[in-house]
Amino acid sequence: MRINDGVKIMNFEEKTIGRAHTYKGSIIDVETLEVVLPDGKKATRDVVLHPGASVVIPVNENGEIYMVRQYRKPIEKITLELPAGKLDLGEDPEICAVRELGEETGLIADEVKHVISIHSTPGFSNEVLHIYLATGLKEGDAHADDDEFVACEKYHVNKLTEMILKNEITDAKTIVGVLMADKFLKGEISL
Amino acid sequence: MRINDGVKIMNFEEKTIGRAHTYKGSIIDVETLEVVLPDGKKATRDVVLHPGASVVIPVNENGEIYMVRQYRKPIEKITLELPAGKLDLGEDPEICAVRELGEETGLIADEVKHVISIHSTPGFSNEVLHIYLATGLKEGDAHADDDEFVACEKYHVNKLTEMILKNEITDAKTIVGVLMADKFLKGEISL
Repeated sequence: MRINDGVKIMNFEEKTIGRAHTYKGSIIDVETLEVVLPDGKKATRDVVLHPGASVVIPVNENGEIYMVRQYRKPIEKITLELPAGKLDLGEDPEICAVRELGEETGLIADEVKHVISIHSTPGFSNEVLHIYLATGLKEGDAHADDDEFVACEKYHVNKLTEMILKNEITDAKTIVGVLMADKFLKGEISL
Repeated sequence: MRINDGVKIMNFEEKTIGRAHTYKGSIIDVETLEVVLPDGKKATRDVVLHPGASVVIPVNENGEIYMVRQYRKPIEKITLELPAGKLDLGEDPEICAVRELGEETGLIADEVKHVISIHSTPGFSNEVLHIYLATGLKEGDAHADDDEFVACEKYHVNKLTEMILKNEITDAKTIVGVLMADKFLKGEISL
């Protein structure tokens, strides 16, 4: 058992000694790295390169959150998620958050504040998700991308928390965002 | 604005009309699908195939959680995460949870209960993470895989929640697990 031997962690790093671009997709690429482990042995690491994305928690004065329902091909399921979308090249995450909110829900927000940024799956991808809380909402017209089919639905945060516990909402970023909104609405955190 | 037009969601599905295995890695593969969109147009979808993983929240009677610190090559960072590891072929997620807990922390648990299962990033991967709460813990000897370098550290759930809000813990599954443990310890959920 090695409890609290965090002092040795500086040795954990894996030095890159080789790098190959092994897959090029439209959204993701794969880079395969040859690394040296802390004990001097060599290993390979596949890294799924992703441009990063912004996630928005649009919450109104009644504690209701606007969600999007969409089909997710990788899991062959219709999911209920917070509005989100990937960053354009060089795009500021906050600008992206505002843009995606408009595209997917038609909402315009008075105020957009950064909550936290998270790694979706740091074991095999560099994807970062920047989570924003949007308040002072006005409804407008959604204008999703041509190949994007989403429906906007509104739920109270308590209902969403219940759906998380019942395992009806399964998207990691959405669970994190809803639980953060819950803390915000209860006054447990301020932004 | 299309609030609550969820009735139309049955049309969201994307039918697969072509499938190619475009990358084969050691942990992940990529499959590229040709799909028909709801409007009849065609599109391609890259899907990162992952075997799935189990995640454990090992919590003791003092509200402390055993965490692992490790280096994550994809983000070039040392992270603090809940113990977790991928499923062996055909392995039951609960068996995997018990195995990974032993390997990474040396802990043996009296009781292991399923909390929820989540999708890390359903936009581009099929990865499912099965989250378990482990209680009645006994410390033993860790026995990590040969190419696994991890240090086990113990923190109170309140400290971990604080670290999440300060954006010091960024791994999505860990954030979900710690916030679930917090609800469990406060009696807000029972398993």
